[in-house]
Formats: sequence, C-alpha cells, structure tokens
Amino acid sequence: MLTTPDFTRLEQFMQAHRARLEAQLNLAVPADLGASPRLADAMRYAALGGGKRIRPVLTYAACALCGGTDEQADAPAVAVELIHAYSLVHDDLPAMDDDDLRRGRATCHIAYDEATAILAGDTLQTRAFEVLASGGGHSDTARLAMVRTLAHAAGAGGMAGGQMQDMQAHGQMLTLPALEEIHYLKTGRLITAALVMGALAAGAPAVLRDTLRQYGDLIGLAFQIQDDILDVTAATEQLGKPSGSDERHGKSTFPGLIGLEASRERAAQLCQQAHALLDSVATERDVTLLKDLASYIVARTH
Amino acid sequence: MLTTPDFTRLEQFMQAHRARLEAQLNLAVPADLGASPRLADAMRYAALGGGKRIRPVLTYAACALCGGTDEQADAPAVAVELIHAYSLVHDDLPAMDDDDLRRGRATCHIAYDEATAILAGDTLQTRAFEVLASGGGHSDTARLAMVRTLAHAAGAGGMAGGQMQDMQAHGQMLTLPALEEIHYLKTGRLITAALVMGALAAGAPAVLRDTLRQYGDLIGLAFQIQDDILDVTAATEQLGKPSGSDERHGKSTFPGLIGLEASRERAAQLCQQAHALLDSVATERDVTLLKDLASYIVARTH
Repeated sequence: MLTTPDFTRLEQFMQAHRARLEAQLNLAVPADLGASPRLADAMRYAALGGGKRIRPVLTYAACALCGGTDEQADAPAVAVELIHAYSLVHDDLPAMDDDDLRRGRATCHIAYDEATAILAGDTLQTRAFEVLASGGGHSDTARLAMVRTLAHAAGAGGMAGGQMQDMQAHGQMLTLPALEEIHYLKTGRLITAALVMGALAAGAPAVLRDTLRQYGDLIGLAFQIQDDILDVTAATEQLGKPSGSDERHGKSTFPGLIGLEASRERAAQLCQQAHALLDSVATERDVTLLKDLASYIVARTH
Repeated sequence: MLTTPDFTRLEQFMQAHRARLEAQLNLAVPADLGASPRLADAMRYAALGGGKRIRPVLTYAACALCGGTDEQADAPAVAVELIHAYSLVHDDLPAMDDDDLRRGRATCHIAYDEATAILAGDTLQTRAFEVLASGGGHSDTARLAMVRTLAHAAGAGGMAGGQMQDMQAHGQMLTLPALEEIHYLKTGRLITAALVMGALAAGAPAVLRDTLRQYGDLIGLAFQIQDDILDVTAATEQLGKPSGSDERHGKSTFPGLIGLEASRERAAQLCQQAHALLDSVATERDVTLLKDLASYIVARTH
C-alpha cells in the first residue's frame, strides 16, 4: 500500500480550479441560453450541480505542467465537463441505468422529465463542441485537435461505446479483461482526453502529450477501480448516490471479480506506475501536482 | 401559385449527390466503428436508411454555387446529415414523439431498444463533429467555422431548442408567430447551416454566405409548411410515416392554424422570395439549381 501523501497543495489547487470551472460553466451555460428557459434550466441543473470535477482539474493541471495558463485551459476544461455531464444525464435515464439520485440530488429526468433530460444531455454535448470551437487563446490548429480529441474520446469508440458495452453486459459475469475494457472506454478515454487537451491548449510538444496520455490511461483505470471499491464500502450519503448500486444493477465490478484486497492492490499499482511515468519527465517539469492527483484518485473516499 | 418548373436537372443533381452522400456516410459510419458492433449497427440503421437528404444536397449545391468542389462539401454534407439523423432517432423515442415508423421502417428504438437508440443518437452527434474537424480540403479556420455553425444551429438555441419548445407546446393551440419560431428553430436553423457550411467549405466571401443564410431561412420555413401540408394530405405509404400524426400528437400546424389554402400560398410566397433573393446574385453565379430546389421543396409530394 502507498502511504497517504500530504494533499494540502493539491486540495488548494482543486478548490481554486473547481471554483474557476464553476464560473466558466456559468458563462458557457447561461440561464438565457437558447430558445427554452426550461431546457437551459435543466442543462444548468446537470452541469452546475457540483461533483468532483476530476476531468477539468486534470485539464488545468496538465496545461499548467506544459507551461500553459488557466485561461488557455478554460475552454477544454468546460468542454470535457459538459461531455461528462451529458453522459451522466443520459446514463441515468430509465432506459439506461434508471437512477434517481446523483450527487445527492434527484437525477435530471426526475427533477424535470425524460424528454427534457434527453434534450438537456443532447444540448450539453453540442455546447461542449461549440465552446471548444469558439474559445480563444489557441491556434486554430490546436482548437481543431481538441475537437477531434474530445469527439474521439466521447463517441462510439470511447465513452458512449463503453456505456453500450456496459448495457450489453448487464447481468453477465465478465472476465477481468472485458471489465477493464469497459472501464477504459467509459471512464479512461475521457480522463485521457482531459489531459491531452490540457497539453494541446498549452501548445505542448507531442512527446509530452504522449506521456500525459499514458498517465491518463493508468489513472483512468485506477479511478474506476476506486469507484467500484467505494460502491461496495462507502455509505450512500458519502457517495451522493445509492451505495451497492453496481450489484443491484447486475454490473460486474473489480471487487466482485477479484475481491476487495486485490482491487486495492491493483489501484495502488496503477498509481505507482503513473508516478514512475511522471518521474521520467520530472527533470524538466514540476510533476508534483499530477503525482498527488494520482494518489488522491486512489485514496479518495467519495 | 407557381407553375411547376422542369426538375430534370435538379433531379439528376439530387440523385447523383444522394448516391455520393450514401457512400460518404458509409465511410463515416463503418460497420466496425467503435467498441460495440450493435451500436455501430444502430448508427448505420439510422444514418444510412435513405430519406430525402435535403440538407446535404443543399450543402453540395451551395458549395457548387460558391465555386467549390464536391470533395470540399463532403465533410459538412455528412456532418449535417448525421446531426439530422441523431435528431430523428431521439425525437422518435417514447419519451418524446413516441413514433414507431420512420422512412417506411421501424424507428431505431423499435428495431433495437431504447438504450441503444439513445446511445446511437448520442454517437451520431459526436461523429458529426469529429467528421467536420477531421475533413480535408479546407483551412483550419474554415473547419472551425463549420463546427461553430453546425453546433450553433443544432444546439439549445437551434434545432434541439425548437424540439423542446415543440414538446412544451403539445396540446396547446399556438399563435402563428410561435409556430413559425418552432419551425424556424427545429428545421430552418439546420437547413441554413447546411447552406452556410457549403459556402464556408468553398471559401466563399461573407456577403455570399449571408445571401445563402437568408435563402435558407426562407426555404427552411417553406419546407416545414410543406411538411405540415403533406401530413394532412398525403397517404401514409407516400410519407413513410403515419399521415395525420401531427394532429394525433396534439401539434399545431400551419393548415390547422390558417387552413390548407393559405398554407400553400404562404409556402409559394416564401419560394418566390427565395427566387428573388437568388436573382440578386445571378449575374455572377449560376443560381438555377438553388432556385429549382426552392420550387421543389414546395412542390414535393413526400
């Protein structure tokens, strides 16, 4: 097991950038956005409802590591969180995971209705690409690369494809590689895109982007393993959603397949691999923040 | 009333470009796209299922008018049709319009299931932006402008916002301006985007883009009025969806608000305005095709 590191600096960074993101999301999804106040309201309900904001925090941290500014990271940070928010709204729908509770509040289709939730998810996705294509502070080439990166990670070959595999696997006992693939697609791809977009926003060289991509693959899986662990071990009020919901949904999980202790060891191992990867570029860059983020992802309790 | 023009040249153009689009869609949504064969299958079912292909035909025609090539129009033509296909899949869902039949076939959630249809719609949208951002033959600046144009037209301030207004208006008798706004958002905005993207793809000057935008606003409304008329007058097998479905859905329509004859006159008037607008640039450009397209939209019987 890893010793728990001192998260003081990381927590300050996360707190500051969560607040920054909230302000940026407020600008990106204003109450008077679009043609229907009810739709804008539902979009804001889904996007501004708090949450861990892991993906945008990674974008800000990756951009900073690559020498970029917070202003450069704003558009990709907002865009990746809008994609994440859209996916949660649609995943919670009755035809999908049928969840009533998310982040301690009613899910979007419960707070509004199914039609509104479908359209809110749809328009959050559209807005993500609009924000990316409209943001300033980067070259047109970098912005296009960010659109491609985000679309590739979110689409049929990424997040949504993983959700589809997840739906198809309901009630089945998966093999470990099959479960890892679902997790990689559903969660890892967007986490990696968050990091790569941070690097693109800063105009980082391709070799550094590749390091961040590998780091993202490692912590993305670690993140999902920890999610599975928390679903078994944490209380409902800590999670903001019903604990034990994976089992009730008939979903395969790491603890279910390899046990709780082996799951913890696998997460810790991925975290150590992420640390080692960052150490390889540490002579030129301050990698403390991203190392702490890897540790935090495995150590978090909600 | 307008005399029915000779559509021979237009029909050749449409036939050739529908075939071209089908081939391009086949490339953009291949059977091995993504992580789930079932999801790719549902995406192809929704995107390759035929249809009038009005929007991509407009993109090809606008690009040609502006001196561009078919190759330059391919990516925006595919992208606008993918957005249209996604919107049909989601609009047909039980929580939305709850339609079982589309283009003479079972709708996506009937042919597959609701979860698959939600994800197929989601990923068709994602793919539209990915295709636009990846296409060749234009400057990065033009491609970014196309992404913005399409996102703006499809999102909360456009197509999806119009669908939301439409849902909220169910069972209500709308005023004519309110109905025109819904039609403008739901249908007009994407038709206009199809034309503007064609102009952007060809690198056309802003003044020509503006003319095409105005032309799109006129024919977009004419298109929707004709849709309303056909829903009342055409047989189910002609439409490929149940006729009279607007009334059963409690939707306000032009014939319902102002009568069939006045609806026909309004559509013809919009068509004439579109012709007059094109005549203003006819000294420098061959506008025959777009004039015929305006006439076709009003004269079509399905």
